[in-house]
Amino acid sequence: MEQLGDKKWGFQRNQELEASSISVRGVLKQLMANRNEEDQRSTIPLGGADPSIYPSYQTTPFVADAVADAVRSFNFNSYASNVGIAEGRRAVAEHLSKDLPYQLSADDVYLTVGCTQAIEIVVSVLARPGANILLPRPGYPQYAARVGCSSLEARHFDLMPEKGWEVDLDSVEALADENTVAMVIINPSNPCGNVFTYQHLKKIAETARKLGIFVISDEVYAHLAFGSNIFVPMGVFGSIAPVLTLGSLSKRWIVPGWRLGWIVTSDLNGIFQESGFAESLRSHLEITTDPPTFMQGALTQILEQTKEDFFSKILNIMREDADFLYERIKEIPCLTCPHKPEGSMVVMVKLNLSLLEGVTDDVDFCMKLAREESVIVLPGIALGLKNWLRISFAVEHSLLDDALGRIKAFYNKHAKKE
Amino acid sequence: MEQLGDKKWGFQRNQELEASSISVRGVLKQLMANRNEEDQRSTIPLGGADPSIYPSYQTTPFVADAVADAVRSFNFNSYASNVGIAEGRRAVAEHLSKDLPYQLSADDVYLTVGCTQAIEIVVSVLARPGANILLPRPGYPQYAARVGCSSLEARHFDLMPEKGWEVDLDSVEALADENTVAMVIINPSNPCGNVFTYQHLKKIAETARKLGIFVISDEVYAHLAFGSNIFVPMGVFGSIAPVLTLGSLSKRWIVPGWRLGWIVTSDLNGIFQESGFAESLRSHLEITTDPPTFMQGALTQILEQTKEDFFSKILNIMREDADFLYERIKEIPCLTCPHKPEGSMVVMVKLNLSLLEGVTDDVDFCMKLAREESVIVLPGIALGLKNWLRISFAVEHSLLDDALGRIKAFYNKHAKKE
Repeated sequence: MEQLGDKKWGFQRNQELEASSISVRGVLKQLMANRNEEDQRSTIPLGGADPSIYPSYQTTPFVADAVADAVRSFNFNSYASNVGIAEGRRAVAEHLSKDLPYQLSADDVYLTVGCTQAIEIVVSVLARPGANILLPRPGYPQYAARVGCSSLEARHFDLMPEKGWEVDLDSVEALADENTVAMVIINPSNPCGNVFTYQHLKKIAETARKLGIFVISDEVYAHLAFGSNIFVPMGVFGSIAPVLTLGSLSKRWIVPGWRLGWIVTSDLNGIFQESGFAESLRSHLEITTDPPTFMQGALTQILEQTKEDFFSKILNIMREDADFLYERIKEIPCLTCPHKPEGSMVVMVKLNLSLLEGVTDDVDFCMKLAREESVIVLPGIALGLKNWLRISFAVEHSLLDDALGRIKAFYNKHAKKE
Repeated sequence: MEQLGDKKWGFQRNQELEASSISVRGVLKQLMANRNEEDQRSTIPLGGADPSIYPSYQTTPFVADAVADAVRSFNFNSYASNVGIAEGRRAVAEHLSKDLPYQLSADDVYLTVGCTQAIEIVVSVLARPGANILLPRPGYPQYAARVGCSSLEARHFDLMPEKGWEVDLDSVEALADENTVAMVIINPSNPCGNVFTYQHLKKIAETARKLGIFVISDEVYAHLAFGSNIFVPMGVFGSIAPVLTLGSLSKRWIVPGWRLGWIVTSDLNGIFQESGFAESLRSHLEITTDPPTFMQGALTQILEQTKEDFFSKILNIMREDADFLYERIKEIPCLTCPHKPEGSMVVMVKLNLSLLEGVTDDVDFCMKLAREESVIVLPGIALGLKNWLRISFAVEHSLLDDALGRIKAFYNKHAKKE
């Protein structure tokens, strides 16, 4: 046998693919690694959107019981159908139909392993060489990462901070061509924290119809709207353009680790059927993994019977903390929040580097903040917007208070001297 | 606004991609759809490998309790790390190390959404344009389907029925070139039902080392060996060649719907680190979905404390049913089983079409059998071997008995007259 030392192994890294794989998770890990281990204070993570560890944000025991009952029933140990089990699909259809002017059917619903897999699947099904997809800037990097793994080209349209982060529909029209397959919106918005109005969503649908493209509406933060704009699902406009709604239990039920999501088709004109998209989707689902069958089995109880007071309690906490963050940001001269957060768990804040000394950009700001103050916030470049920051307000209030104090101290330390 | 009828939508199907997506699930669905609805007898599914609905094969309540406890603990509601939570990884490392001459570390383990996602991830990480991977024929179609979605080229080596389904190592050497990244084996074998010997596995490892390729050892049926060959994990030979072991709770614990799997690196020479594979894998895991965190949290209890008598009870049932199937196949002239099943839940049986009238091939056989006898078996072509059948023996004994009677009746009806 030859010596291993002599061997050339067949594996080579696919650098191109890896370069596209920017993820929130990956960036946060780098920031965490840059902390000063000698800092005796606890680290305050405002970089993610997972408040499930905090007492104020704990899910209701009712939903844990629903999962425990499903797994103990022994009725859900088998492989599920590729599209999801019928009762789980029906539960999602019923749940979403409450906010729609028409009734979804179970056949409109495809169950996925969280919204992460929903994104992966939708991108895979849309992909073909030469085609392109329109993504928001700033956006959620999972879309660009998955598009980078596919044969699709990503094109970015702007969200406009001065207009409450509405979509720049002119830039959408300018980017689209005959090879554009879809546009993505995220509502309530990650990372901007705004909630689109009924009128703006309608305009998005009309633009999509004009361009002949699908709308992918990421509603993982559905109903987490606590400002003046109420949450309107994009599916309301399924009569104007074909809409793929992506959703999950993760955010509203505060169980991001449970990994139960869905893809839902809202398409009153049958474009998904006619174009073959629905068949391609079902075909692709034959070779993808599924959410645990018992999670699918627990959906009916979770979606139908979670008490309203749990949701309203969470919304009240989020409203208070979002307002608190917004007010406290005003006290930090190098940060500007152009739009008061009214949904999701995060908000975009602009960084004014000219007021700082020795801080070169948003990444440098975040790395130094992690190092010096043990506070983690996400650099905007990870979301496509350089020299902005994404800050989560969904943490225990006392921590948010403490973190904002530390960010202010960081500013004071690095403020440019007159 | 324009009329929808005038619109050309940007989406087009990617036919090439879809054509590669043969799946067991998809083929079974077609067979099920071909049944005669007027047949009053119940359908007997010998096409899949999911006995979880049968009383004899039910999992132990202990494992359901472990999951229920984890979900009710509220300790596992958060997002998991991309590689899996530390205690779950440690539990898998401890569990697999019992059968290895060395100790795996938690860092060797990556938790996945069943073995299905493990396959998907490994194929994605290995893929680059121009590279190829060696797959067994017959094999498990998920590999070919996932390779078809990637930039990898699939090349097929033979398993030899006359030699107990051992790998034709000459064909492996003939197929491999400098762009070959890995070879796949499935042990205990799906679809052949054999279990590789220690000596044969060692030869596979030596061949891989000589060729400079990784070994992907699909051990989703690990320990489901009830014949004379004991199950030996490929990781035993991690000192010879770098081994990726894929595994899952699905088969041994009879919970295929639970979707908890793993990728494990066994590589005493550090090739996965040195070549950058390990880093590529971790990077790719940043953008993939994860098994529910509470499933990861339940792993320690499940892997450490499941009672041996549950495993031995299942093995005894499987041994009896495999033997029963093997003997009864002998009574059906058009079928030959070249190797008595000794592992997994399925076996390959050769179809002798010359003894049949009006049956053109394996697909025709399976479609007519579904139609006329409401018995579902998998056509070999779905696994790469035309005019063979894959039959599962892991069903309730009375059903197996009934099914074999019906297959015999089917033969009698279609037997060529002298």
